[in-house]
Amino acid sequence: MVKINENYLKLEKNYLFIRIAEKVNAFQKANPDAKLIRMGIGDVTRPIAPVVVDAMKKACDEMGVKETFRGYEDSGAGYDFLRNAVSDYYRSFGADVPASDIRINDGAKSDCGNLVDIFGDDNIILITDPAYPVYVDSNLMNGRQIVYADSNEENQFAAMPAPDGYELNGQKVFPDIIYLCSPNNPTGAAYSKEQLAEWIAYAKQHGAVILYDAAYEAFISEDNIPRSIYQIDRAKEVAIEMCSLSKTAGFTGVRCGYTVVPSELKTMASDGTEVSLAQLWNRREGSKFNGVSYPVQRGAEAVFTPEGQKQVKENIIYYQENAHVIAETLKELNIPFTGGINSPYIWFKCPFGMDSWTFFDKMLNEIAVVGTPGAGFGKNGTNWFRLTAFGDKDLTIEAMNRLKELVKNSQ
Amino acid sequence: MVKINENYLKLEKNYLFIRIAEKVNAFQKANPDAKLIRMGIGDVTRPIAPVVVDAMKKACDEMGVKETFRGYEDSGAGYDFLRNAVSDYYRSFGADVPASDIRINDGAKSDCGNLVDIFGDDNIILITDPAYPVYVDSNLMNGRQIVYADSNEENQFAAMPAPDGYELNGQKVFPDIIYLCSPNNPTGAAYSKEQLAEWIAYAKQHGAVILYDAAYEAFISEDNIPRSIYQIDRAKEVAIEMCSLSKTAGFTGVRCGYTVVPSELKTMASDGTEVSLAQLWNRREGSKFNGVSYPVQRGAEAVFTPEGQKQVKENIIYYQENAHVIAETLKELNIPFTGGINSPYIWFKCPFGMDSWTFFDKMLNEIAVVGTPGAGFGKNGTNWFRLTAFGDKDLTIEAMNRLKELVKNSQ
Repeated sequence: MVKINENYLKLEKNYLFIRIAEKVNAFQKANPDAKLIRMGIGDVTRPIAPVVVDAMKKACDEMGVKETFRGYEDSGAGYDFLRNAVSDYYRSFGADVPASDIRINDGAKSDCGNLVDIFGDDNIILITDPAYPVYVDSNLMNGRQIVYADSNEENQFAAMPAPDGYELNGQKVFPDIIYLCSPNNPTGAAYSKEQLAEWIAYAKQHGAVILYDAAYEAFISEDNIPRSIYQIDRAKEVAIEMCSLSKTAGFTGVRCGYTVVPSELKTMASDGTEVSLAQLWNRREGSKFNGVSYPVQRGAEAVFTPEGQKQVKENIIYYQENAHVIAETLKELNIPFTGGINSPYIWFKCPFGMDSWTFFDKMLNEIAVVGTPGAGFGKNGTNWFRLTAFGDKDLTIEAMNRLKELVKNSQ
Repeated sequence: MVKINENYLKLEKNYLFIRIAEKVNAFQKANPDAKLIRMGIGDVTRPIAPVVVDAMKKACDEMGVKETFRGYEDSGAGYDFLRNAVSDYYRSFGADVPASDIRINDGAKSDCGNLVDIFGDDNIILITDPAYPVYVDSNLMNGRQIVYADSNEENQFAAMPAPDGYELNGQKVFPDIIYLCSPNNPTGAAYSKEQLAEWIAYAKQHGAVILYDAAYEAFISEDNIPRSIYQIDRAKEVAIEMCSLSKTAGFTGVRCGYTVVPSELKTMASDGTEVSLAQLWNRREGSKFNGVSYPVQRGAEAVFTPEGQKQVKENIIYYQENAHVIAETLKELNIPFTGGINSPYIWFKCPFGMDSWTFFDKMLNEIAVVGTPGAGFGKNGTNWFRLTAFGDKDLTIEAMNRLKELVKNSQ
């Protein structure tokens, strides 16, 4: 008889955003006239740039003509025109990433979830807490053991490596695979070059691989914050980097991202032979992925042109201004927070000593503003709350005015 | 230290089509003036239908306007407009598949590879031989044991279930997961309703799940050949079906397909609780997939409109005429073959008692025609060869003329 993967039964039933959606739906049913403002799920609201629309439409036309029609991509790793554009983009901020180390994907979520397939189930995983739930779930699905590095108020939500290891079942262990996300989802905190160098040294010391999520790099505004882990020496020997156009260029509905597995990244099989992780990953993708839609790849290419960069930066500035509005409100209310400077996320301490789901309900029911309870990202989020700057400017201002009223009236 | 998934080291180094590409590249380098005709990889050559191009361009325009912009899909399972269109399409040939059982994907290959994640690694897999290599590789990657059902000249390349089970390590075993592909890649053979009913009864008897690959259903021209396994009674209790627009509508470069996991498909966990496979699959996809590009989904929707069906059928008829040309040539040469009637694939016995890689080299080097050696699909393909009808009509005729010469001159 068929046997299921029983690890799935150990996963939490409700994915964070599904639970939120249920609560929001119930609220809307009970309050059909309420003017709801959504600052919860990290989705963008600005349309995609005109150069991207034009490039995609041109590619659609090409697909309708025999002479320019494109079928399967040879490798499924992405067309050279796009891999080269991504490589040039990396070079523009000082990271040397050859096109051959880059694979184009349909958004970072797929690769983030699927990359773990090339690793054994007996690896110990280190995840910062709070974190994007996909890091946790995609490892629990294979029954891997997870240890957590606390990101909290004390370290400004930027967990650093523990020299003595992490506790697992009463023993101290060192992780084999380390997830880092900077600028961080959900906290908005970003690692400096020195901090990343420390993580790289730690990974090298313990033979660990870093899975680096750079999905929010386009929001970095401070000079000493690296856009890519490959701006740090020797990162290529330990780190895989995932990035996406979802937040950079509003591609949440267009679907395109990229993953870098450097050719320098080698490890050893149990029999002592050297193994290239890029080769394993290419083998995995060669069997389970057939490449990204051609018109989408042309749209992504347009993002990296000078005109594309100009247009997508206008949207990023728009969101950064929202982040500023949120940050100024929290300062005014004397509420501690991280993020908002190098990130579209603002992570703040729930007022009134509330836990985050209680504060979520209060915000929803009293001022019709939807945020994301920090508890959904791990235990260090229990009393914290995430707002995103991806909304409409007027609505963001309106929501912050409502928040001010809420806090003042409840004091 | 990080541990790799060592199952990857047991995979064959060269994926079939990569090995072919290497041989073809070497030939072209040595013979720059040769007029190569490609009848190997199963890629289409006709452009996508005008209604599809228009629908995609319209959707690109929508993405460029704030009011009609779309970000993340709520569920990632596909927009209702497309899931409903697929459900209606199923109904048009007598299969009752509700939209809620359908997930839209970026092509059947991803789901075909990823579906196995929801099953335990201790399942025994049954794959017909010859078969699409992805079935084998995606299970070897998890260390699952595979048994094979022989499709051969004797049973007209339509393997039927073995009542006494299959041999594995000297013992008779019954499979837990059964891969069926009809119309078959590579053989072009298609199961009748009676044959599928037999497989369904076998799966029910042994508590097995059938993974049914219907990627070539649009090429079925005979009445008694089902387009979907759900045209057969009780199939929903045992079968998952994967389908794709790649061959139906030339979407190999556009990337869209769909998978059906019926709500009726239940199994038991080791503790005896009932488990819905659809729920496991949705959980997997919820964590590792973020839905298909919106413009691509609009393009797919257009395929299922009356005008879309008319336009894509013109291309299918074009390919069917190619298949007819190939079939007639093989008949004239007295070469045994299957396929070509309900399939774009023609599977024939290599002339001169040659093995398939030797015949591949002969075709390539003597008449500059590229096909696919049957050996790449399993041991029963050792002396067989696959040609596809996806090429240009004139080139298909030209290739068949060259084949006639080759066979006559070698006799």
